[in-house]
Amino acid sequence: MNIPCVFWLVPIASIVALGMAFFFFRQMMGEDEGTPRMREIALYVRKGAMAYLWQQYKVVGIVFVVLCALFAFMAYGLNVQNPWVPFAFLTGGFFSGLAGFFGMKTATYASARTANAARQTLNSGLQVAFRSGAVMGLTVVGLALLDVSVWFLILDHFIPADNHLIIITTTMLTFGMGASTQALFARVGGGIYTKAADVGADLVGKTEYNIPEDDPRNPATIADNVGDNVGDVAGMGADLYESYAGSILATMALGASAFATSAVEGMQLRAVLAPSLIAAVGVALSILGIFLVKTKEDAGMKQLLAALSRGTNTAAVLIAVASFAIFAWLFGTETNQWWQISLSVVVGLFAGVIIGKATEYYTSQSYRPTQKVSESSQTGPATVIISGLGLGMLSTAIPVVTVGCAIILSYLCANGFHVEFTPENLSMGLYGIGIAAVGMLSTLGITLATDAYGPIADNAGGNAEMSGLEPEVRKRTDALDALGNTTAATGKGFAIGSAALTALALLASYVEEIKMALIRLGETLPNGVDAAQATLVDFMEAYNVNLMNPIVLVGVFIGAMMAFVFCGLTMNAVGRAAQKMVEEVRRQFREIAGILEGKADPDYARCVAISTKGAQREMMLPALMAIIVPIVTGVILGVAGVLGLLIGGLSSGFVLAVFMANAGGAWDNAKKYVEEGNFGGKGSDCHKATVVGDTVGDPFKDTSGPSLNILIKLMSMVSIVMAGLTVTFTLF
Amino acid sequence: MNIPCVFWLVPIASIVALGMAFFFFRQMMGEDEGTPRMREIALYVRKGAMAYLWQQYKVVGIVFVVLCALFAFMAYGLNVQNPWVPFAFLTGGFFSGLAGFFGMKTATYASARTANAARQTLNSGLQVAFRSGAVMGLTVVGLALLDVSVWFLILDHFIPADNHLIIITTTMLTFGMGASTQALFARVGGGIYTKAADVGADLVGKTEYNIPEDDPRNPATIADNVGDNVGDVAGMGADLYESYAGSILATMALGASAFATSAVEGMQLRAVLAPSLIAAVGVALSILGIFLVKTKEDAGMKQLLAALSRGTNTAAVLIAVASFAIFAWLFGTETNQWWQISLSVVVGLFAGVIIGKATEYYTSQSYRPTQKVSESSQTGPATVIISGLGLGMLSTAIPVVTVGCAIILSYLCANGFHVEFTPENLSMGLYGIGIAAVGMLSTLGITLATDAYGPIADNAGGNAEMSGLEPEVRKRTDALDALGNTTAATGKGFAIGSAALTALALLASYVEEIKMALIRLGETLPNGVDAAQATLVDFMEAYNVNLMNPIVLVGVFIGAMMAFVFCGLTMNAVGRAAQKMVEEVRRQFREIAGILEGKADPDYARCVAISTKGAQREMMLPALMAIIVPIVTGVILGVAGVLGLLIGGLSSGFVLAVFMANAGGAWDNAKKYVEEGNFGGKGSDCHKATVVGDTVGDPFKDTSGPSLNILIKLMSMVSIVMAGLTVTFTLF
Repeated sequence: MNIPCVFWLVPIASIVALGMAFFFFRQMMGEDEGTPRMREIALYVRKGAMAYLWQQYKVVGIVFVVLCALFAFMAYGLNVQNPWVPFAFLTGGFFSGLAGFFGMKTATYASARTANAARQTLNSGLQVAFRSGAVMGLTVVGLALLDVSVWFLILDHFIPADNHLIIITTTMLTFGMGASTQALFARVGGGIYTKAADVGADLVGKTEYNIPEDDPRNPATIADNVGDNVGDVAGMGADLYESYAGSILATMALGASAFATSAVEGMQLRAVLAPSLIAAVGVALSILGIFLVKTKEDAGMKQLLAALSRGTNTAAVLIAVASFAIFAWLFGTETNQWWQISLSVVVGLFAGVIIGKATEYYTSQSYRPTQKVSESSQTGPATVIISGLGLGMLSTAIPVVTVGCAIILSYLCANGFHVEFTPENLSMGLYGIGIAAVGMLSTLGITLATDAYGPIADNAGGNAEMSGLEPEVRKRTDALDALGNTTAATGKGFAIGSAALTALALLASYVEEIKMALIRLGETLPNGVDAAQATLVDFMEAYNVNLMNPIVLVGVFIGAMMAFVFCGLTMNAVGRAAQKMVEEVRRQFREIAGILEGKADPDYARCVAISTKGAQREMMLPALMAIIVPIVTGVILGVAGVLGLLIGGLSSGFVLAVFMANAGGAWDNAKKYVEEGNFGGKGSDCHKATVVGDTVGDPFKDTSGPSLNILIKLMSMVSIVMAGLTVTFTLF
Repeated sequence: MNIPCVFWLVPIASIVALGMAFFFFRQMMGEDEGTPRMREIALYVRKGAMAYLWQQYKVVGIVFVVLCALFAFMAYGLNVQNPWVPFAFLTGGFFSGLAGFFGMKTATYASARTANAARQTLNSGLQVAFRSGAVMGLTVVGLALLDVSVWFLILDHFIPADNHLIIITTTMLTFGMGASTQALFARVGGGIYTKAADVGADLVGKTEYNIPEDDPRNPATIADNVGDNVGDVAGMGADLYESYAGSILATMALGASAFATSAVEGMQLRAVLAPSLIAAVGVALSILGIFLVKTKEDAGMKQLLAALSRGTNTAAVLIAVASFAIFAWLFGTETNQWWQISLSVVVGLFAGVIIGKATEYYTSQSYRPTQKVSESSQTGPATVIISGLGLGMLSTAIPVVTVGCAIILSYLCANGFHVEFTPENLSMGLYGIGIAAVGMLSTLGITLATDAYGPIADNAGGNAEMSGLEPEVRKRTDALDALGNTTAATGKGFAIGSAALTALALLASYVEEIKMALIRLGETLPNGVDAAQATLVDFMEAYNVNLMNPIVLVGVFIGAMMAFVFCGLTMNAVGRAAQKMVEEVRRQFREIAGILEGKADPDYARCVAISTKGAQREMMLPALMAIIVPIVTGVILGVAGVLGLLIGGLSSGFVLAVFMANAGGAWDNAKKYVEEGNFGGKGSDCHKATVVGDTVGDPFKDTSGPSLNILIKLMSMVSIVMAGLTVTFTLF
């Protein structure tokens, strides 16, 4: 196939992103790492984090080998699957892991340097932390675009001409499954690790012994700081790599099928390339945005926030404008299609911003909802929990309604505002939904930077505390951390919103994959319709994927349950691991003489080992469940049951994820609000009550909640990859 | 129409049930109410409960008047609705309220008498409490069957011959909406009342002042006991009236449509009558079961439990056997249909038992899960909350899988094990699902008795404590209460399982009602198919109710959100009301001199007033939301959106309800496990941590959780009643 030269923008953007990431990395490495004690502590954390990451990669590696063997057997033995699947799956997992690894490596080098820079001014601290966050942001988008472009070229070379682009794009989805699998392990494993350490450290240190956070006397404090890196940094990196790549891949597949019968020469190819082009332009704009984040040396919090917002907002506005140019160029301006589809990008961006603002409203202590949670601490921990749960549940309304509107609007914009439910309108509309998700994530390079520098600042604070730096430094890193929480809210909005839209787009890809499987097997649809000619609507009729079919309804039930059971498993995992940590910390305080006076060193390594072991053991079951349940559902309930499962998991999972993230965020900030001196301030009974809330919120917002985003996409990806099996063997 | 004489069994069963209820009531009233102090306290509680109930009925009355006027306008003004709707709606609400009222009246008379009887032996306490519970059980089923039979006769007289039975049965569903509306207000209002009082009393009394439960020095103690009556008794009565009537009505409607084209003379009528006949026979067997609950005078806990189980199990086994006889008689034994449909009853009963056992396993302190929650109290309240939430989430697996299997099995049994998705198989299968729900609830007369006597025993304990009876009496009432918790688990399993099945059956009724509305308006389906000839499958195709339609998906999202927002509203309502209660109790302890020494009387009335006001104010928003959202969704998103909404609400609501009920139950019993002397026993730090769990669990299990069951059915009922509006005005 003739690849148009515009395609080459994608690999170029990828290389530019990776190059800039390397540039920022070198810049950060050039900073001074501070006092010997600071270096020592940073080394401790770095070693612990790397040791854990290797452990995790080993376990995940085994899972990948087993899955790969299974895919190879299905492809070469049973012939029910595309032969490229095992390889695409592997690279997806590898690159996702690599994104996490690079991000974490940067973060562990950056924390002491950030602390050291913060000894001068707030602004210099921000510069180091933010540029280090940018390394992660640019690495994620760079690796994703690299993987997309290389695989596209390879498959273009080998895949025969029949259904060329459809087969290429659906094959590339497999690499999404690799990325999702890796991301789920990273989020769940990292999440359990970090929260076991955090909860354990807080419960004994803060609550029982009244020593401050990150105090070097606390045996769990190194594990806690390691946890921030493996959970919040490496986990987040793998997670957002998966979101970013997933949205692009799903939309490419939708483009291939929506324009499969287009009369215009090369239109299908241009529709397939559009999402990666938007992403490529987004990379350039993200880099521009990153350079815009600059302030005067004596800048205060307000100016810093303004600087960050300037960067992200400029990138967002420009990408909206740029998308009109991209589609005008790709689709031509003879018809209205170019601006109609571009509106879908705008819808996606807007929806992301609204969800972000809603998240901020519900979780920031500057607003009433979180302040009310603080207030309820006057009547003890129970009312803190009740009001936090209530807040979290209520906070689902705006995001869900926003995503609902975004779905309908991006659908209607892309298909030229046609309400009639015809196969053509449907395909174009679904492509629009995918484009909205890509638009939402297009500036990930910079939004992830604003998200990722938070944990770096957090770690810098830990380093400052443990190295015994002046309290002023800790105050500055805390301010950076708080600033990060505000900007991260927007980032989270984009992540959750795009997950819902991407998962929706993946539903259509699933049906497309069923179609490909039927064509490969030479079979027709159950009602005799020729698979090659069948539209999405034909599939719905042939497989009875309607809401009166009990199989669909049972699938929906099981999907909804999956979201809850998955959270239950991860919550319990954190609970169990944290309990072990508490016991160990208590034991050390009891048995090591002089530990509380700072005369004897605690045994940090044992706490690290407990978190590592806990995470290793506990991450397997939930992650495997996410892979196995869709396969089993496919075998027992068939296509209709799988689609029900995916919808049930998507709807409940999305709402549950928002609930958990916001409840957790509100508890965290309700505690901070008390610590700022309200309701008695630090050490008061109210403070203790809010610490209970914060502790419960930890697994909510950092383990179970964010993993749900991945879960819903992984279940779709597994179903897509296993489509061949589902049409070959099924009970119903 | 010629009504076959077998029909008269239904009104006869109703009169027998009401007669027996009156008999048991008189028997209970003949018991001695004890010492003057006991009478005085019972009078206090009775007066408070009645005063609240009247208040609530007033508010609900206004809502009913407004809704009735709206229905009347739609029926007579706009002509989009069946003219019987306003009347049917009113009686449903009235009877549901009446069931709650009678139940509560009985309970408030029974508590002192139970306490007095428990002064002799455990067994005599059980007899009084259980017989009083039976009054409630029999009143609920009696009133429901009365309403069903009277309306059937009236409508049969007035409705013209065209589509006679379909119009009768879909009209009767409106009375289900009345019952659901009343039930939702009763559950939410009563739930807020009781938990505000309970949480308030516990937080200050138990946690801050270390005085025991139900201590007369606690100003909130009367409000707490009043709350048990208005929430656990009146709320539960209205709730189960709604479930019972709803399952019968939905199945009647399914029978009318499944057999609409049956060639056999009178078959349709017999299919319509079948559910009420099963219910009628269930009444007789329940009464038999109630009489089987007898033990020797000196019986211990084990014998009492065996006696209760003997009653419920005998009734359940016999109804399974009887249903074969009923269907053999109604449908004849020429074809296999009679035993196939009967198997659906067995499936329903089995599913109920499995869910009940799973509930018991997850919430009883005799098993590991709840014991683990107790264990986690060693590391403080935060881990108690985390492990309880984790347990609740995991506990959703068995009920969901069970209901999933029950749906598929009862569907397949009823349609003769035909997997093909044809309109005939679908209609018969859905009828089977409805029959399974009816089977599950058929022995409600006795299962509700085992459920309802728990709160009576609880109140008897309160009375014993406040009247200063010997500690032995309190121990006995506590034992009865604990016994009630175990048997109530099964009851809850039946309630939750049947709600899911009934809601599913209501989906089909909704489509049926859309069909009727189109016929009334003389319109065709959107794709031109004649409404009168259209099957359920035609409707799915005409309205594009498939999982690729973004309108459906947005509906599912909003439905899932509804469940969470509804819980958020009710949780916050309890939190707010409880906070006010805490402040008032603290104030009284502070300001009333001598209150703690028992020298001065607390101001009980003010606490009662706070709970009343809180419940009144806070119940409006969630209840109205349940009514308004389906209407608005219908107007904006049309039929496809409404079906999506109902499925989303049903799936998430069901899972969320199980999660909340089980987490709440486990926290309650984890506290009891500690109180039994484990982990330091009463007054220890572990105990305090579990009290926090119990307090959070209170609104989970007694306000938000059980209300969800009603919410999902009410949303369906509203959609059904508003079907005429939806087909007349809709945006998409």
